[in-house]
Amino acid sequence: MTSKTTLRVIPLGGLGEIGRNMMLLEYGDDIIVIDVGLMFPEEEMLGVDLVIPDFTYLRERREKVRAVFLTHGHEDHVGALPYFLREFDVPVYSTRLTDGLIRVKLQEHRLLQKAKTHVVEPGQVIEAGVFRVEFFTVAHSIPDACGLIIQTPLGPVVHTGDFKLDHTPVMDQHTDLIRLAQVGAEGCLLLMADSTYAEVDGYTPSEQLVGEALKQIMVNAPGRVIVATFASLISRVQQVIDAAVFTGRKVFVTGRSMIDNVAMARQLGYLQAPEGTIVGVEEMRNTPPAKLVVITTGSQGEPTSALTKMANGDHRHIQIVKGDTVVLSASPIPGNEQAVYRNVDNLFRLGADVLYNRVSNIHVRGHASREELKIIQGLLQPEYFVPIHGEYRHLVVHARLAESVGVPQGNAFVLTDGDVLEIDEEAAWLGERVPASYVYVDGLGIGDVDQHILRDRAHLSTDGVVVVIVTVEKQTGALDRPAEILARGFLDLEEREDLAERTREVVAKALQGAEHYAEFGDINTRIRDAVSKFLYDETRRRPMVLTVTVEV
Amino acid sequence: MTSKTTLRVIPLGGLGEIGRNMMLLEYGDDIIVIDVGLMFPEEEMLGVDLVIPDFTYLRERREKVRAVFLTHGHEDHVGALPYFLREFDVPVYSTRLTDGLIRVKLQEHRLLQKAKTHVVEPGQVIEAGVFRVEFFTVAHSIPDACGLIIQTPLGPVVHTGDFKLDHTPVMDQHTDLIRLAQVGAEGCLLLMADSTYAEVDGYTPSEQLVGEALKQIMVNAPGRVIVATFASLISRVQQVIDAAVFTGRKVFVTGRSMIDNVAMARQLGYLQAPEGTIVGVEEMRNTPPAKLVVITTGSQGEPTSALTKMANGDHRHIQIVKGDTVVLSASPIPGNEQAVYRNVDNLFRLGADVLYNRVSNIHVRGHASREELKIIQGLLQPEYFVPIHGEYRHLVVHARLAESVGVPQGNAFVLTDGDVLEIDEEAAWLGERVPASYVYVDGLGIGDVDQHILRDRAHLSTDGVVVVIVTVEKQTGALDRPAEILARGFLDLEEREDLAERTREVVAKALQGAEHYAEFGDINTRIRDAVSKFLYDETRRRPMVLTVTVEV
Repeated sequence: MTSKTTLRVIPLGGLGEIGRNMMLLEYGDDIIVIDVGLMFPEEEMLGVDLVIPDFTYLRERREKVRAVFLTHGHEDHVGALPYFLREFDVPVYSTRLTDGLIRVKLQEHRLLQKAKTHVVEPGQVIEAGVFRVEFFTVAHSIPDACGLIIQTPLGPVVHTGDFKLDHTPVMDQHTDLIRLAQVGAEGCLLLMADSTYAEVDGYTPSEQLVGEALKQIMVNAPGRVIVATFASLISRVQQVIDAAVFTGRKVFVTGRSMIDNVAMARQLGYLQAPEGTIVGVEEMRNTPPAKLVVITTGSQGEPTSALTKMANGDHRHIQIVKGDTVVLSASPIPGNEQAVYRNVDNLFRLGADVLYNRVSNIHVRGHASREELKIIQGLLQPEYFVPIHGEYRHLVVHARLAESVGVPQGNAFVLTDGDVLEIDEEAAWLGERVPASYVYVDGLGIGDVDQHILRDRAHLSTDGVVVVIVTVEKQTGALDRPAEILARGFLDLEEREDLAERTREVVAKALQGAEHYAEFGDINTRIRDAVSKFLYDETRRRPMVLTVTVEV
Repeated sequence: MTSKTTLRVIPLGGLGEIGRNMMLLEYGDDIIVIDVGLMFPEEEMLGVDLVIPDFTYLRERREKVRAVFLTHGHEDHVGALPYFLREFDVPVYSTRLTDGLIRVKLQEHRLLQKAKTHVVEPGQVIEAGVFRVEFFTVAHSIPDACGLIIQTPLGPVVHTGDFKLDHTPVMDQHTDLIRLAQVGAEGCLLLMADSTYAEVDGYTPSEQLVGEALKQIMVNAPGRVIVATFASLISRVQQVIDAAVFTGRKVFVTGRSMIDNVAMARQLGYLQAPEGTIVGVEEMRNTPPAKLVVITTGSQGEPTSALTKMANGDHRHIQIVKGDTVVLSASPIPGNEQAVYRNVDNLFRLGADVLYNRVSNIHVRGHASREELKIIQGLLQPEYFVPIHGEYRHLVVHARLAESVGVPQGNAFVLTDGDVLEIDEEAAWLGERVPASYVYVDGLGIGDVDQHILRDRAHLSTDGVVVVIVTVEKQTGALDRPAEILARGFLDLEEREDLAERTREVVAKALQGAEHYAEFGDINTRIRDAVSKFLYDETRRRPMVLTVTVEV
């Protein structure tokens, strides 16, 4: 299956969904891993906390795994690293801020002592088996984001990570077009590029626009300005601080992950604030509203976040009042719309003015739009192309875009998680698939929640549960007393005693029909079927019916 | 509370949410009802089928209710009518298509014989107690849509229904600006206008754009063109048929509600198709793909819709193949995004080309944007303004818009469901609130699902249920045998027999501590607490624990 002269490209996550990004490159006896991200559960993954990649393929080739390379510090690129490092003892390479972020995470998981993390600089080359991996800078919504140039025996492979082309970035980190042009001139074997925004025409605007907008808002706002954004969006936090300084306002930071990230970023020098700008609770209380800015988590409507607490009137330090201006400096991630807009509505109800994506330009996204993607294609002119990071439709439109600007027809491969692209000197083709299912993390369990359990949760969520306990005479199987009926999430059976009574009659009748004292399984099935049918006929609902028979 | 000379404006639905629109006007002994709509459940309303308005206020004033006026035939304006007419025997007035649609619905509910529905023409005036109600045409995404001019003893009230200003509508139905200008010239007491799109700058584009785009798509498509849209969007269906005729294609209709609505609209003359254009299954099968258009339901990703079946490879008559072009001529309604884009992904996977809102202009919305809303304000120059039909944020921005173009400061009232606006010759003020809670329809039950049951469903959906059956000796309360443990949606306890065994031990231990044979309630609580704590410590999950004690 694995030839010595074949490069194998194996996405384990992020191709066909947004999140849990993880890509393998394999050549002969060497495998390198690019990113080990997590995904937040989709609507139907009821009760699941996180989704991580399936490491089965690597478990079976443990001795081949040379290193992990992380492109940047967002959760969808590094969040599953602790789960990975529990099992694999390999070095991890990333730039400085990314390293800072994963060390916090590894500490929480008590893996920091054991982990071999290494800080690299852009331009630095790491040897990992047959691969030579060079980091290059990209503009993205977190500092120190990088792409990778991977020299392989067949030629260079470029992985963009997440990127856009911001010519006026806040922290002066451009996408290194010159380095990419050099690779293109040498001849790029394979390009793997970010597809998140491949549907969007034109260019993604510069972060600078947001800075101007924030200043304008703070100049005009009559009272406090409360800005919610992603805790990892450190350049945005810097812009808020800059605008506060410009308008003579103090800054109060709230929300656990925002407090942590601001502290870490200041410590590492990624966030600059003049002495006395960032204030604590006491000083915040003594600052007039017109001289105050609050930076908070909760831009996605997360239920326990600081902004959601403010919107619900539950925040310990901040009560929203008329005169407050709340700025949601983020777009709702698909799936979060209801939660985000519920906060907007509640903030309006409390009297705040609310500026959000539908009514103001107070956010720009961190991913390249179509014209930017074309520029990358033009610089690299790759022989093969694999769109990465996106839902299936994003990958399809990105592959088409690539073919429209020069990738040879048939050389743009739309892969999804678990597909294997094999490349040799002559050609590229799809190999045999590898395991790449969703692995669910729920509480302490990893992978013990399966489709069966999720189906049960979906069933329970729709019409609840009815438990029927039947006590029967051991010898004869005759009913010893009326059945006991319990319901949750179905109907209030205490209020509907008539229905409970008739259900007991249905149970009694179901048992009368029995010719012989049968197996309990049979009795239980017989009762379940009878009760399910009866309740459906009566209510047109289908609760999950559980029956237990107790012999006396 | 009710003065003879006070006009009371009472929204029972649609102000603070999208859907279940229902507005009351009350003056002295007369109440009229405008629209009786339903709402589709939000994410957290687990298992609920529909949400309807709370009729409590009307139940208590049954003899005052004079008539129902329906602005147009969409579900969010007429869908709760059957539930209303079960209880209230009053005449219902609407235009012809609306009447056709509600008659189908009343037939299903076996209420048609008893219902007093009346067809009215725009311009016609209906007397209902002290009110005189005139229908005027508006442009919207369904034919025969109207607004209402209601003459009251205090002056005219205008209710726009849902509307936009399309100057080149498909079915030639303009918003009657001339009639509105006349009312404005006479002096409009109160305007209530559609807020759905009050966040959106500029103008909503004309339906004509969509017609051009559909023709272009059908000219270029190499094979079948499959167009999904709302079944009620009859003008869009007409545009699809027109484009099919223009490009020499036959039309096959699929999806229950689409088939029904097309049949009804053709019968009433709202849909024109040349003889032989619309074909059945047999003829569809014998038509070359390049000569075929399919019109289908499923534009919102509804799980049992025809398009979702096609996307899953489950449709009885249509298998998606390479060469098919699928057009989603609709925007995802908030909350439906995941389902819609899942279909897009699956259709791409099957080889179709998919045109959807993010990549093509193949839909325009049916509601007025900000510039259109300003025109209505300018024509009517109302003394008072109440924004209707929208989430709270839409109402707030619409009220601000109104004040910015001439409504006197303080005269734009942001009401939500159950608020009462009282108006007399001198002033307007908020009265005492009336009941307006969400009434849930679930199966056959109306209003029997409450917050308590929904909380249980949410709990069950997150971590499942664990049932513990304990058999105790009647006299002593001693455990007669090991407890029986059942789990669903939690963990597979058959696979995790160790955990089941230790849970049984926890139960046994919990009972040992008992000093005396206590009440069953106590035993059950004691066991539940012990098991809940144990399972949380072991798994960090919180299943719902139900305990039943059987005495032997």
